[in-house]
Amino acid sequence: MVKTLRVPEATVTRLSIYSRYLERLDRNGVTSVSSGEIADGVGVSPAQVRKDLAYFGEFGTRGVGYNVKDLMRYTLKILGLDRHWNLVMVGAGNLGYALCTYKGFNMRGFSIVGVFDNDLTKIGKRINDLEVLPMESMPDIIKDHNVRIGIIATPTRAAQEVADYMIKCGMQAILNFAPLPLTLPDYIEVRNVDLSVKLEILTFNLGFKSAQNV
Amino acid sequence: MVKTLRVPEATVTRLSIYSRYLERLDRNGVTSVSSGEIADGVGVSPAQVRKDLAYFGEFGTRGVGYNVKDLMRYTLKILGLDRHWNLVMVGAGNLGYALCTYKGFNMRGFSIVGVFDNDLTKIGKRINDLEVLPMESMPDIIKDHNVRIGIIATPTRAAQEVADYMIKCGMQAILNFAPLPLTLPDYIEVRNVDLSVKLEILTFNLGFKSAQNV
Repeated sequence: MVKTLRVPEATVTRLSIYSRYLERLDRNGVTSVSSGEIADGVGVSPAQVRKDLAYFGEFGTRGVGYNVKDLMRYTLKILGLDRHWNLVMVGAGNLGYALCTYKGFNMRGFSIVGVFDNDLTKIGKRINDLEVLPMESMPDIIKDHNVRIGIIATPTRAAQEVADYMIKCGMQAILNFAPLPLTLPDYIEVRNVDLSVKLEILTFNLGFKSAQNV
Repeated sequence: MVKTLRVPEATVTRLSIYSRYLERLDRNGVTSVSSGEIADGVGVSPAQVRKDLAYFGEFGTRGVGYNVKDLMRYTLKILGLDRHWNLVMVGAGNLGYALCTYKGFNMRGFSIVGVFDNDLTKIGKRINDLEVLPMESMPDIIKDHNVRIGIIATPTRAAQEVADYMIKCGMQAILNFAPLPLTLPDYIEVRNVDLSVKLEILTFNLGFKSAQNV
């Protein structure tokens, strides 16, 4: 399995952030933007913006900058967001509820179309317009809605088993919210969302400031 | 306000990930590790591991590698995690519940010691051993528990107002889960957790694979 992806993941992450900023400019009626303005807007250097965009071709005109709408559409297309993505999720606990109602997914073209749990007290409950279904219903929902990405919002102890089941059901990518790394085949795209990583950037910076004030 | 932090944020993020990996090795009784093994374990290059650690001094012995326990403790210390951090949170909705019960915070030395909401139907309810309190109680809790970091888990429309109030109450850093950027004074450390950024790394990679298979 070839896994050579020449674009660094940090670049893809920044592209995601640039595209949000461009959407905001576009909503505010801004039509043209420089790499310096994008850099200021998202908190990186102008050289970084130019380097990141250069992975994907030539953009903008020297001295004129970028057309906001064009660059926004292009970044969304690169990220695969020029289409709609249906997702399934396992885990109808508090985190599952929170993710089902998280506006940030819809804003980017993601819809959770199926929520599954093996807890009999949760099956049949409703989250917004979704009914929590038993795990056995996953293959049908995946087929009906052409789903390729699954979200794991279960307790830690269940996460690996759920991931294995998702792959058996044909999922190609998994977003894992359980705070442990999963062991999965190489051909599966998996990313862990660790909710405390960004807290640690805060504690690092608070410690750094304290040290400066000594 | 000097904001020159010479360590790139990407390095701090990776340090957080290295430290988790080292904790896992330590729990499994591993005493020595090479930069190549750390790199394999977390999915970066060995050169990246060495470069990241080099920001903080000399580690390891050539040909022998790193002492797991020493390097683990040192990375935790750099991240400010050689101490316990108390946090307050605003927003006792689904996301707030999920964060209060999220094991990943406790595992890294974070405790949520106060949960606040202005919704009268939520105030007085219990989340684990915490009672949801009115916003006016925040200053007392912050003082009693020496809190410097606040978490925002409110609906988007309330996030800016809550952030302003937190700063008024003396918070120095804010972790924002609402999917919009906050406008805050420069001396406040703020990070946004956008739950869909990692989804977009998955869609980028799925798109890249499809392109390779054409």
